[in-house]
Amino acid sequence: MTDFFHGIPKLRYEGPDSQNEFAFHHYNPDEMLGGKTMREHLRFAVAYWHSFAWPGGDPFGGQTFDRPWFGDTLELAKLKADVAFEMFDILDAPFFCFHDADVRPEGADFAENTRNLEAITDYFAQKMETSSTKLLWGTANLFSHRRFMAGAATNPDPDVFAWSAATVKTCMDATHKLGGENYVLWGGREGYETLLNTDLSREAEQAGRFLAMVVEYKHKIGFDGTILIEPKPQEPSKHQYDYDVATVYGFLKRFGLENDVKLNIEQGHAILAGHSFEHELALAASLGILGSIDMNRNDYQSGWDTDQFPNSVPEMARAYYEILKAGGFTTGGTNFDAKLRRQSLDPDDLVLSHAGAMDVCARALKAAYALFENGSLEAARNERYAGWNAPENASMLTSDLSSIEQRVRKQSINPQPRSGRQERLENLWNRFV
Amino acid sequence: MTDFFHGIPKLRYEGPDSQNEFAFHHYNPDEMLGGKTMREHLRFAVAYWHSFAWPGGDPFGGQTFDRPWFGDTLELAKLKADVAFEMFDILDAPFFCFHDADVRPEGADFAENTRNLEAITDYFAQKMETSSTKLLWGTANLFSHRRFMAGAATNPDPDVFAWSAATVKTCMDATHKLGGENYVLWGGREGYETLLNTDLSREAEQAGRFLAMVVEYKHKIGFDGTILIEPKPQEPSKHQYDYDVATVYGFLKRFGLENDVKLNIEQGHAILAGHSFEHELALAASLGILGSIDMNRNDYQSGWDTDQFPNSVPEMARAYYEILKAGGFTTGGTNFDAKLRRQSLDPDDLVLSHAGAMDVCARALKAAYALFENGSLEAARNERYAGWNAPENASMLTSDLSSIEQRVRKQSINPQPRSGRQERLENLWNRFV
Amino acid sequence: MTDFFHGIPKLRYEGPDSQNEFAFHHYNPDEMLGGKTMREHLRFAVAYWHSFAWPGGDPFGGQTFDRPWFGDTLELAKLKADVAFEMFDILDAPFFCFHDADVRPEGADFAENTRNLEAITDYFAQKMETSSTKLLWGTANLFSHRRFMAGAATNPDPDVFAWSAATVKTCMDATHKLGGENYVLWGGREGYETLLNTDLSREAEQAGRFLAMVVEYKHKIGFDGTILIEPKPQEPSKHQYDYDVATVYGFLKRFGLENDVKLNIEQGHAILAGHSFEHELALAASLGILGSIDMNRNDYQSGWDTDQFPNSVPEMARAYYEILKAGGFTTGGTNFDAKLRRQSLDPDDLVLSHAGAMDVCARALKAAYALFENGSLEAARNERYAGWNAPENASMLTSDLSSIEQRVRKQSINPQPRSGRQERLENLWNRFV
Amino acid sequence: MTDFFHGIPKLRYEGPDSQNEFAFHHYNPDEMLGGKTMREHLRFAVAYWHSFAWPGGDPFGGQTFDRPWFGDTLELAKLKADVAFEMFDILDAPFFCFHDADVRPEGADFAENTRNLEAITDYFAQKMETSSTKLLWGTANLFSHRRFMAGAATNPDPDVFAWSAATVKTCMDATHKLGGENYVLWGGREGYETLLNTDLSREAEQAGRFLAMVVEYKHKIGFDGTILIEPKPQEPSKHQYDYDVATVYGFLKRFGLENDVKLNIEQGHAILAGHSFEHELALAASLGILGSIDMNRNDYQSGWDTDQFPNSVPEMARAYYEILKAGGFTTGGTNFDAKLRRQSLDPDDLVLSHAGAMDVCARALKAAYALFENGSLEAARNERYAGWNAPENASMLTSDLSSIEQRVRKQSINPQPRSGRQERLENLWNRFV
Repeated sequence: MTDFFHGIPKLRYEGPDSQNEFAFHHYNPDEMLGGKTMREHLRFAVAYWHSFAWPGGDPFGGQTFDRPWFGDTLELAKLKADVAFEMFDILDAPFFCFHDADVRPEGADFAENTRNLEAITDYFAQKMETSSTKLLWGTANLFSHRRFMAGAATNPDPDVFAWSAATVKTCMDATHKLGGENYVLWGGREGYETLLNTDLSREAEQAGRFLAMVVEYKHKIGFDGTILIEPKPQEPSKHQYDYDVATVYGFLKRFGLENDVKLNIEQGHAILAGHSFEHELALAASLGILGSIDMNRNDYQSGWDTDQFPNSVPEMARAYYEILKAGGFTTGGTNFDAKLRRQSLDPDDLVLSHAGAMDVCARALKAAYALFENGSLEAARNERYAGWNAPENASMLTSDLSSIEQRVRKQSINPQPRSGRQERLENLWNRFV
Repeated sequence: MTDFFHGIPKLRYEGPDSQNEFAFHHYNPDEMLGGKTMREHLRFAVAYWHSFAWPGGDPFGGQTFDRPWFGDTLELAKLKADVAFEMFDILDAPFFCFHDADVRPEGADFAENTRNLEAITDYFAQKMETSSTKLLWGTANLFSHRRFMAGAATNPDPDVFAWSAATVKTCMDATHKLGGENYVLWGGREGYETLLNTDLSREAEQAGRFLAMVVEYKHKIGFDGTILIEPKPQEPSKHQYDYDVATVYGFLKRFGLENDVKLNIEQGHAILAGHSFEHELALAASLGILGSIDMNRNDYQSGWDTDQFPNSVPEMARAYYEILKAGGFTTGGTNFDAKLRRQSLDPDDLVLSHAGAMDVCARALKAAYALFENGSLEAARNERYAGWNAPENASMLTSDLSSIEQRVRKQSINPQPRSGRQERLENLWNRFV
Repeated sequence: MTDFFHGIPKLRYEGPDSQNEFAFHHYNPDEMLGGKTMREHLRFAVAYWHSFAWPGGDPFGGQTFDRPWFGDTLELAKLKADVAFEMFDILDAPFFCFHDADVRPEGADFAENTRNLEAITDYFAQKMETSSTKLLWGTANLFSHRRFMAGAATNPDPDVFAWSAATVKTCMDATHKLGGENYVLWGGREGYETLLNTDLSREAEQAGRFLAMVVEYKHKIGFDGTILIEPKPQEPSKHQYDYDVATVYGFLKRFGLENDVKLNIEQGHAILAGHSFEHELALAASLGILGSIDMNRNDYQSGWDTDQFPNSVPEMARAYYEILKAGGFTTGGTNFDAKLRRQSLDPDDLVLSHAGAMDVCARALKAAYALFENGSLEAARNERYAGWNAPENASMLTSDLSSIEQRVRKQSINPQPRSGRQERLENLWNRFV
Repeated sequence: MTDFFHGIPKLRYEGPDSQNEFAFHHYNPDEMLGGKTMREHLRFAVAYWHSFAWPGGDPFGGQTFDRPWFGDTLELAKLKADVAFEMFDILDAPFFCFHDADVRPEGADFAENTRNLEAITDYFAQKMETSSTKLLWGTANLFSHRRFMAGAATNPDPDVFAWSAATVKTCMDATHKLGGENYVLWGGREGYETLLNTDLSREAEQAGRFLAMVVEYKHKIGFDGTILIEPKPQEPSKHQYDYDVATVYGFLKRFGLENDVKLNIEQGHAILAGHSFEHELALAASLGILGSIDMNRNDYQSGWDTDQFPNSVPEMARAYYEILKAGGFTTGGTNFDAKLRRQSLDPDDLVLSHAGAMDVCARALKAAYALFENGSLEAARNERYAGWNAPENASMLTSDLSSIEQRVRKQSINPQPRSGRQERLENLWNRFV
């Protein structure tokens, strides 16, 4: 045991009335909702980068966190892993997620990077033998190093494309070896700073082919996890190609990949794109590409990615309602892509931020589940469209404009508005949340 | 002649030094740029609705404009047409655009609406015999009347779908009869106010089929204009399905309509979606769906559709540069979907707002044309991607991750960043604009 | 009795488990929290304009509501009043609020407007004799009519200034006569569309003097209610002078009115200004100018004033916490400046939107009250600043830079950061909300 | 000479037709506009931090720039100074600006920081003997180091207040010694991350007293430059107290400092606060607190501080018009608080970004000057308010509501709207810009 979390107990469920800060008040992992436990419904994952690699900097200030494992050696990387798995244990976290750059020291070249990644992959594998925490997904960090400043797959320099492809291969290998359930691609530099120096068409072709190679490689190595793209509209790039769910869907359709790739949808990225989180989830579900979620919260009034821990039960209930409606997670889960505020310096803060987030997710899930089971919202929704069940109405969808015009004239169709009942449905919602 | 524009002369090009407010200072319709006149490049159109039908209201105040033709009779509709064609003549406007609801009185039912539309179509046809102004596009207003409050094609009530389909048929007929070069669909109510009462999947199916019927009807009647969708992210709806260019592309691909439908892209709608206008144009061009533009300006700091007349030459030059790069307009044009500020009460304001907008478009076009002809920006862009011309690099796009990884190892590829030269390209731009 | 609300019962508190949609589930008016009932804490008011005068239009569509009292006669105005007081009774609403233009028909000139207002004032007074609903505040609508398009107090035309001053006098008289507890000024047109035609200095002088005259008139007629300004940053104007709490404070200081005027702070206006509602409340409280609130909700992702009924308990709890901390309302209250979605056509919608909002306010108040009584948040806050209690630290505030520099050198002061504990405080918050 | 700018010539004015990238095309320092040269009008300053201290990082990526002076020794700090003054010479920059942290190595404690600052101050003083570049302003960086994470003057920890006060003293000393014309305070951490742990009232008192001490110290040392506050709404803090011009004005009034402190207004900060730059300038001028400007550009569609070099002549012309109207700069100037895009790696980029910005400023100034001299915009503005010149109208401002109401009745005042002529004024503007 390291002594980083010295004195912090393993968190247990103690119920809503417990005064113990170091306990779960709502997240009861073994409690059943329908045929699944809360643990199975929520599939929580800790994000390695924010919790163990981020130094607390922001655009106007540097490191605030003092962590004994900060530094760029393999030894420190292992200390970091030790602490991480200790926190997974304190939280009884079902999963974690990582980028290569979070877990291994940066090497001088590709070969060294790969050796470092393999060393840490082995170290993880060894720790996972005795841990109950599994890997939700792995990914390659193709955005932090200066070599990626103009893109990875979409870089004007083919050498960067090559480096990126090779790196993704090694990260897929590591993910596969660790039994990861998904592999994620986030294109933080796949976009542009200015159109003046950018060839949109060419870059889209590069990106399409890159993704196809990822899918091909997955099959080649027998990785049966899901390939996930994570949409985000901008930041760090001025414009990023994987803008939002609808944009990525068009991209997948363009390159014929809509059956091979799903989405990892982040609350904060949805907000930055001008959408509600539930919109993005509902849309992805309706398009058959809902994969996993990054649960966090973005300040609606800050125009950058604030990556805060979630804390609005009503908003999260909307999200879990959509997930329940879509049948729940399969390989996906709830990854806390959230970071401490940079003033939250203490190990206590790191543990309790996660505990609080798990509790609010649990409250949200329970409320959403109760309403979904109750069925009254779905009944109201169906009732609103019930007119389409009449054969003469349904058949319009296989008709043509002229025939429909004749029908309107003949039947003197003159539609009268009916109430959309929005506030009453909001009241219904509030009865459960 | 009506006396609405009494005393206002027909505007002529007098050059930049003219002190005459009632003249063009930059728009010289017959001046050649390359093989086309400015008139042919820009293809200006006046928007009937803003200029002749809008009363000057806003969410907190009612009508400010006193127009002698306001009212809901066929006679007043003809007076409105008389005034409109007088302004077309004053401006020597090559085109105009209209919705059914702008030009005809509202009837009690579908049959009366159609009769009214046909009467006005005939009146227009007669006026166009002696006018040099042609129809750029027609469209149906499927958003103002309360029957559309919950959508047109996507309405939960099949009767509204029927009414909308029948109405679009009549508007396509009118557009065809008047020799319109395009037919536009803007889905201001195709979206939702709340997900609580909305079935995204079902509504998308309705919208997809509706659009397919429009395409089918176009062929049926031999209309050889272009079918255009106009993206907008929200307002009036909380969320609109035709959010932006990328979203509409995905929609077209989903329903197999990407070769039959193009886009009418509006500056203000691009801004509301979080994009620059040139982004939307460049993206549409790269996807082969750039059709026409609605030129106006949205205040970046007002979160609603301000529909102001354009007046930033640098921004508009970016837009026309993309249009020139895409080969210029074919059936499309520059429609001023712009309205007077509601305090701009006078006939002079109406004429001069258009004149000013035409002048700034002309300045923008000339600057963009000069830079495009100069070729130095395109040369810089191509140079940035030149590495991809090497066969060993180009061949990566038909390779696979493992092979690329081997190449990176064997050749010790370790990419070094090169300057993106953004500010120098901006300086280059400013040498022309 | 009119028959508009036919069949809708008077709403009673039935507790959270009641399945009755036409009941309060959380708002129990007589329940005590500390020394006050919930009714006394919350002081709910119905807004006459949204609920009884708004036709359901938006910038892209007209009237959706069919109300039997729509029209511009005194008789219809009385029918509207009858229905309004029936709803006040159904809800047992403690208060209502109105603008002159909501309640009286528009006249041809000032004299007729005043006569109409007086007639309705008398009609209200008569109804209030037997009603338990009182007047929270009255105000003049100085923004809807076209005469106000360029401002009221700040209009370039002195005749509009005169008209506005005279109108405010009559509205203050009406408010006084009806026992109103406050008088509100919202300057929806006090601002500008473009700086090109605006003289900021002159307009500020006009506004400052206008407000001073309002304060003087209050004393003259013995009105002992509070004069309130309602901040809003923009819409309908491009820029409005009463932008936010901080701006209005500067304005009041400039004209020496900071002890005579307080603020009516609206959730949606706070959001549009880029602030959280609780920020605006806390700031106003710290400046001694917190008066009353307009409770509604603005969609964070729509850039206009959506004026929805509130429904986020966590956000509203933040607001009521600040109000409790400031000592609660005196003459102020919770006015629902909220309107139905325009698809919510039915009388049921109108009643239940208010009932739902009252319930969520009640939940929010109870949670905020419990945490405030508990004291742990205030204790944590005080502890964070405890270092300032030491005399050598406190005395720095009366010292000077040189002396402090000497102290830093002499004592080798080298401050070490302490955790801000944000997530732990959020967890604490969530234990109560 | 260092060899960083090897091969880059001193830039000269060559006129708009020059094809030489390393020349000014519009900025002709000695050209007269009215009684002042362009050099005297514009008073350009280079920002030390962005150009020489910023490594090119962003929230998702690290350093991109390789500069030989990066590192934390006094020797490297002097190399940095050498390069900086070489660039000042290349550009013939009239001024520069700096924070302590940009120019000196970070020390272990206050004493070492001060020694380092003094060493560099002396080094600057020596270089300035032979340079034509003067100091526009100095400032203390009270935001980057982790000790400031919870504020400087407003920190809950009095030791940070002490450190900050002492540091400002040393920076004012350095500024005074170098003949700086202003001293700036930007409170990037004077604000809050969450209201939950913040005491607004107490922090405002700390800030007010801190600023008063700065003013007192200025007088004590005989510094006759201007004390400037730089407003910014947020970033890095969630909320910053010096939100915008109006907010700072209220703060100055509250603490009686409105005659002692002026503002340094930044384009990007204005945008982030939801205002146009010209609004902030016009407002500050009308309140008598316009001091200096930070000229840059913020992407309207990125919600963070993009600090790009300015390049929109029309927007900058609006800004310079307001400055000319206010009488031009006295101690203030045009500081380029702008940074290269992080892909712009080369020394050429650093020089040419400034050259391009100086050229666009010059174009904007010339256009604004021509229009201001022309007088037609001011004439139109005055004409709009001309009604107030009539004594019976002007006297209303010293009247009262009752008297005005009598006047309205007696004279049957019934104001009729007049056109605001916005588009015509925009056309007028475009004739000059």
